[in-house]
Amino acid sequence: MAYFENVNKIKYEGAKSTNPFAFKFYNPEEVINGKTMEEFLRYGVAYWHTFTADASDPFGAGTAVRSWDKFSGMDLAKARVEAAFEFFEKIGAPYFCFHDVDIAPEGDTLAESHKNQDTIVAMIKDYMKDSKTKLLWNTANNFTNPRFVHGAASSNSADVFAYAAAKVKKQLEIGKELGGENYVFWGGREGYETLLNTDLKLEQDNLGRFFQMAVDYAKEIGFDAQFLIEPKPKEPTTHQYDFDVATTIGFLRTYGLQDHFKMNIEANHATLAGHTFEHELRWARINGILGSVDANQGDPLLGWDTDEFPTDLYSTTLAMYEIIKNGGLGKGGLNFDAKIRRGSFEQDDLFHAHIAGMDAFAIGYKVANRMIEDKVFENIVSERYSSFTTGVGKDIVDGKSDFKQLEDYMLNKGEVTPLTSGRTESIKATINQYLLTTFAE
Amino acid sequence: MAYFENVNKIKYEGAKSTNPFAFKFYNPEEVINGKTMEEFLRYGVAYWHTFTADASDPFGAGTAVRSWDKFSGMDLAKARVEAAFEFFEKIGAPYFCFHDVDIAPEGDTLAESHKNQDTIVAMIKDYMKDSKTKLLWNTANNFTNPRFVHGAASSNSADVFAYAAAKVKKQLEIGKELGGENYVFWGGREGYETLLNTDLKLEQDNLGRFFQMAVDYAKEIGFDAQFLIEPKPKEPTTHQYDFDVATTIGFLRTYGLQDHFKMNIEANHATLAGHTFEHELRWARINGILGSVDANQGDPLLGWDTDEFPTDLYSTTLAMYEIIKNGGLGKGGLNFDAKIRRGSFEQDDLFHAHIAGMDAFAIGYKVANRMIEDKVFENIVSERYSSFTTGVGKDIVDGKSDFKQLEDYMLNKGEVTPLTSGRTESIKATINQYLLTTFAE
Amino acid sequence: MAYFENVNKIKYEGAKSTNPFAFKFYNPEEVINGKTMEEFLRYGVAYWHTFTADASDPFGAGTAVRSWDKFSGMDLAKARVEAAFEFFEKIGAPYFCFHDVDIAPEGDTLAESHKNQDTIVAMIKDYMKDSKTKLLWNTANNFTNPRFVHGAASSNSADVFAYAAAKVKKQLEIGKELGGENYVFWGGREGYETLLNTDLKLEQDNLGRFFQMAVDYAKEIGFDAQFLIEPKPKEPTTHQYDFDVATTIGFLRTYGLQDHFKMNIEANHATLAGHTFEHELRWARINGILGSVDANQGDPLLGWDTDEFPTDLYSTTLAMYEIIKNGGLGKGGLNFDAKIRRGSFEQDDLFHAHIAGMDAFAIGYKVANRMIEDKVFENIVSERYSSFTTGVGKDIVDGKSDFKQLEDYMLNKGEVTPLTSGRTESIKATINQYLLTTFAE
Amino acid sequence: MAYFENVNKIKYEGAKSTNPFAFKFYNPEEVINGKTMEEFLRYGVAYWHTFTADASDPFGAGTAVRSWDKFSGMDLAKARVEAAFEFFEKIGAPYFCFHDVDIAPEGDTLAESHKNQDTIVAMIKDYMKDSKTKLLWNTANNFTNPRFVHGAASSNSADVFAYAAAKVKKQLEIGKELGGENYVFWGGREGYETLLNTDLKLEQDNLGRFFQMAVDYAKEIGFDAQFLIEPKPKEPTTHQYDFDVATTIGFLRTYGLQDHFKMNIEANHATLAGHTFEHELRWARINGILGSVDANQGDPLLGWDTDEFPTDLYSTTLAMYEIIKNGGLGKGGLNFDAKIRRGSFEQDDLFHAHIAGMDAFAIGYKVANRMIEDKVFENIVSERYSSFTTGVGKDIVDGKSDFKQLEDYMLNKGEVTPLTSGRTESIKATINQYLLTTFAE
Repeated sequence: MAYFENVNKIKYEGAKSTNPFAFKFYNPEEVINGKTMEEFLRYGVAYWHTFTADASDPFGAGTAVRSWDKFSGMDLAKARVEAAFEFFEKIGAPYFCFHDVDIAPEGDTLAESHKNQDTIVAMIKDYMKDSKTKLLWNTANNFTNPRFVHGAASSNSADVFAYAAAKVKKQLEIGKELGGENYVFWGGREGYETLLNTDLKLEQDNLGRFFQMAVDYAKEIGFDAQFLIEPKPKEPTTHQYDFDVATTIGFLRTYGLQDHFKMNIEANHATLAGHTFEHELRWARINGILGSVDANQGDPLLGWDTDEFPTDLYSTTLAMYEIIKNGGLGKGGLNFDAKIRRGSFEQDDLFHAHIAGMDAFAIGYKVANRMIEDKVFENIVSERYSSFTTGVGKDIVDGKSDFKQLEDYMLNKGEVTPLTSGRTESIKATINQYLLTTFAE
Repeated sequence: MAYFENVNKIKYEGAKSTNPFAFKFYNPEEVINGKTMEEFLRYGVAYWHTFTADASDPFGAGTAVRSWDKFSGMDLAKARVEAAFEFFEKIGAPYFCFHDVDIAPEGDTLAESHKNQDTIVAMIKDYMKDSKTKLLWNTANNFTNPRFVHGAASSNSADVFAYAAAKVKKQLEIGKELGGENYVFWGGREGYETLLNTDLKLEQDNLGRFFQMAVDYAKEIGFDAQFLIEPKPKEPTTHQYDFDVATTIGFLRTYGLQDHFKMNIEANHATLAGHTFEHELRWARINGILGSVDANQGDPLLGWDTDEFPTDLYSTTLAMYEIIKNGGLGKGGLNFDAKIRRGSFEQDDLFHAHIAGMDAFAIGYKVANRMIEDKVFENIVSERYSSFTTGVGKDIVDGKSDFKQLEDYMLNKGEVTPLTSGRTESIKATINQYLLTTFAE
Repeated sequence: MAYFENVNKIKYEGAKSTNPFAFKFYNPEEVINGKTMEEFLRYGVAYWHTFTADASDPFGAGTAVRSWDKFSGMDLAKARVEAAFEFFEKIGAPYFCFHDVDIAPEGDTLAESHKNQDTIVAMIKDYMKDSKTKLLWNTANNFTNPRFVHGAASSNSADVFAYAAAKVKKQLEIGKELGGENYVFWGGREGYETLLNTDLKLEQDNLGRFFQMAVDYAKEIGFDAQFLIEPKPKEPTTHQYDFDVATTIGFLRTYGLQDHFKMNIEANHATLAGHTFEHELRWARINGILGSVDANQGDPLLGWDTDEFPTDLYSTTLAMYEIIKNGGLGKGGLNFDAKIRRGSFEQDDLFHAHIAGMDAFAIGYKVANRMIEDKVFENIVSERYSSFTTGVGKDIVDGKSDFKQLEDYMLNKGEVTPLTSGRTESIKATINQYLLTTFAE
Repeated sequence: MAYFENVNKIKYEGAKSTNPFAFKFYNPEEVINGKTMEEFLRYGVAYWHTFTADASDPFGAGTAVRSWDKFSGMDLAKARVEAAFEFFEKIGAPYFCFHDVDIAPEGDTLAESHKNQDTIVAMIKDYMKDSKTKLLWNTANNFTNPRFVHGAASSNSADVFAYAAAKVKKQLEIGKELGGENYVFWGGREGYETLLNTDLKLEQDNLGRFFQMAVDYAKEIGFDAQFLIEPKPKEPTTHQYDFDVATTIGFLRTYGLQDHFKMNIEANHATLAGHTFEHELRWARINGILGSVDANQGDPLLGWDTDEFPTDLYSTTLAMYEIIKNGGLGKGGLNFDAKIRRGSFEQDDLFHAHIAGMDAFAIGYKVANRMIEDKVFENIVSERYSSFTTGVGKDIVDGKSDFKQLEDYMLNKGEVTPLTSGRTESIKATINQYLLTTFAE
């Protein structure tokens, strides 16, 4: 049966198309640097936002009514699988992502929940046989159920730690079963609501222990997915432990976990932490842990996670710059962790929104790629830092210098060689030029 | 000569005093837990805000005219030393702190700047002989001079790196000369204005190298001060590398510097980073790196560093809770990195403001101490986390558990033992009770 | 039947009581300035947070399970009324507040919803006969139902405008029926999600028309409640029209509505708008439109409405200062628009949290009252602005001056008479003294 | 003499030019809708940022050294006039703007300051004879001098009120002398630092009186410039009275000043107030008070006024949409109230930055114009709100409806006609298409 009867397969029609059901910039088959766009961009559809969510907000009931909502319970779960694979095919998604509770309802006991998972996973596996869409990552939702009110791995209750462990164990097995390329940890409740009743040290230690157990179990079952931590500074919890990439690096190194995890970086989480998206990508990249991306955007004037579909071309261009410089995302991908606005409640909006996001990253890819071909930033940087390639600068970089040498050098010289402008305004104008002329050729 | 002729030594007069030149809560001689308040609180006066600054802001010229401003150049520097030690004595400060450029003007060359430093340092040393006031810490100002526009240790210019090194070298020598108990690194320009022209990796690496050189040189000259990094997320630079305590832990561990540095935590820097003051203190404490404190407060509705004198008793109480639990600050202290408001431009305001701050931390100290005596938070925490002291919880903490055991345990149990309330509202009401009744006894 | 079986009537026990079910500072019978605390403070219980809400958040299901949750549909609505009046009596609430959908479920049609309202209103009226608790205000919830997705009175759909009108009409009738002293308009969806599809002028005009219709209808039915607008800048809607008090003044004056509305000011809405709570209270007070208060507090580090129970004594003291200077709140009151934290899910927390809030405002009341008796702020202000009581200052205030006179005056004088310090730090220290000594007497 | 010897007149070279001293998109002579770009865009150069400022910040000394800085005092003021008119000619600026203290130093007395103004104004007038560059607006700087520490028109000192009045009087005369088309009021110190020592009512009343005196004096001398208020929420003052457009509307109406003032809207002030730039423009436009624009942009992750040169094409496009819909800016213009970054300290950066900004608004103009030609937003809005053109919707708009009619209508109908999606994502994708294809034709 069809859930999107009025929608055909989305095709590329070019920049001037007015068809709202067509890609204008994303051409999956276009080859850039020896790879098709589809191969390089590795787009993923988020099961929760696309098939499970209803566009409710803290002050309002859901506005989105889907064609599969006539079902309920496990029948609804099955209908969602059908709808999902129909959507994947029509939008041409190479990947999808899910939390356990997105695909199947929780049962009254852990055992029953596991059973529900098994049923739906078998169905998904079956659908995957006839589909090109693969599993980018799955994860356990250890934040929605009331038992996680005080945390999951960082709960004050050992039982809750155990329950969280059991859920992750199950998802690791499912990830292996479905050929998942990554496994994500987002600790929505791993943090504190108030320091006043919190044993911060024990909670952090337990979180470290939990991650180690996950690493051990994946090894035990031979699940070789890339492990990803997804930083977020706050919301739902007042203060979350994986605040940002830099915080997570400190955590991983403190607990000796740095070789086992990369980062799943979300644009809106970056801005909530006070950083740009590209900052988080760059910080991860130079530390060798840029793993995957949750592609969305926030509203800088709002203080919560709006999870908008990405359309800001500055953001997608600078993000794609980092990804290209990283040599691509490897096992990772660009997962649209984005929800249609509450007011965009029609089923067709799911297509329009994904098209908007896929086009936006395709544009960013092409603009960034052209700037890299022209070595725009590379030339600026190599010129700016050239003093570290010779003389006292080279000594510094080579570890051959010390404070005495440097003081002598400067006492002798008296003052530094005049500096040059950083040219920020000029560089920004250059980006605008690239943006406006890339599609004019 | 006297610069504060109309002000006598500040004395403790008790909670109901209406004398604006008296302590109402801070009694330096009062003994708590075997130490006088003065010994435990280790208050420091910030030279820059108190003797050098003029209460200017980005839109306005300085409003504060001081009795020593009739001098200029090195004469002004000398007058400031006289005024400072007069102020220290009258306010009863056990410590003070300075940057190089606070105490003496820069010369036309590095050599001349060094010479100016030497002159004033000799004078300070002389004054210290007759004073109880000691040097909490000194530091090099590597942010004001235009040469640091693109950074100091993270500049794109090797010359600037060298200049910064020479300045820190000099201050390490001066710290030793004056018996400084700590040495602080605040990297106001160690960060980037825009990623678009920045080699982030090289800048971070160079910063690591710089810190290592500082460690090496201090060792070489036998200067055994505690080294402190002061995190701040932004301002003046758009993005600063020592964003917060957690970020700095990651940085130190990445560069193998974690055994050589503790944190100098500033309240207003914490809030700019999206944290509470107590969060930063706690994070440092449980990681064993709570070194010293820049005691001030910010305005949560403003987005810049307001550096207000601390008067919020919730903040001082929770800060002192962390400090007491840390066993005090060791070599560190409570430095008033705080400036009088632009509108509080009269010289007497320097006393009023310090009295406000010293009283506020004394209040916080007594309230926190009473709560610790009553084990208020300790009982809450030990009860809340008791599940980790037996059974499966103990196994987790002891490292004897794994995902399989935990899943078995929970499959067997079906659902977690019912949780209990975190009682946030009740705890907050309890703090209010302690606050209002501590001085009623 | 009893829903709070284990809780007795809450009594005042004094500052040192450790009974979590006792007031420590709020003594309803204590007379201050000729009125009991209960008469002056006019506390209200919010029906929605206390009896209807379940402590869910955007990432989690409800954690609070209430003793009346065994019922459903209209039976649940009735059980809530029983629980509510039991709670009112035990906490000693003089007032309560509700939205239509808090007290009774919506039906399939407007007519059915009206009928459900009638049933429950009759029951409430019956309960009120035997209760001292009165209706502070009621209101129509025109934001939760999906039909309000694009606004209510500012919807793009005329039908939705009509539906919203019908709901407000009904609540005006109910307010009259129950003797409501005020009627509140909070426009959670009166704003825009994006300017890109919005006719801002038409939406504002329609909102003006809607308010006028409400004024007209209340007059027609002889409902003489005070009309209140509750400003909020954002959330749920990206930008809400009643951003803050100042914005609402502009709106009311533009549409000639200024004589018909006062403000219902919420602390957390103030901070979301970039103001302090006391700022909004003061702005309303000097414009003669301080009507009522939603007593809660936010977390300045979080960007959404946390609706915490108020415990910050600086905030309650400065709020009560404004309220006392206003001569009290008249028909308005202090409604606890506050929800227990998600982690405070036990039923007893409803008492603990209300006690925390009622104590906090009682403390603020007593401290502010003592400061007013001592004319602390009054003396500061009258001294600071004294130049406007004579000479050129008096001319300015009396409207007898102009630019030419003022220029002549100043050309003659050359420079202004030296200014004096604003003494911010000293004033803040004084507030601390009052706070700590008021309950020591 | 020439201050920009190495720079020739800036010309339009087209989108692919790599000449950093050329316009790529702004072609002053290009005719759109019957006007040249130069006529419609009415660009202004800000004297303060371009000729007076030195790129200092709160933590650093100025980095920009200009070729005219070899002079001092009145000679420097004269050199700046020469440099300014050279710059105006080379960049092709139709307008400039200044504060009194930008163009001439203050003297020891008001009389001396006036004299300095007269000297330089005479020189400027002379230069204007041979220049096409006109005065967009001038204003009095009533915020930098320490006398304005407690406010200007809202000071607690009547003398300061008088001094501020004398300064504005002088500038009104100068505006008339130089043919200024507008006069701006930005109240950087018109606000409060703390409510604790503030008579808010008196300060607001005095501000109202001051504006009335200005209106009266302009009328008296026959100066028919458009009067503009420039809203800003905070900085330097903690809370400023002209918070945003909506607040200012309330203020003007409260004091009966609404017919005499329009708004000068600054992008960065909008974002500091929690609004988008286009929000402020729209709010002013639909209230008939969109007067002029301070064209810059902020950094949404920083909490202070960064005053960056505008390069964000989303912002310039949506701004130009409002301006075109307003029928242009009338007497107003696009003043670049923007400063080069501290790191862009070379004199050439002044050109690069202005080119970046002028190009960005020219792009926004062309994109917005094309969208208006295609009625992109107009069609969306007219379709979305069509229910208000007939039936009950028309009755509402025509003022022929009331709550009873609307309730009857809805009781009859039962539920609203199903709503349609707001299509936010699709609209954003459409903007991207227009952006990328406008310059491809």
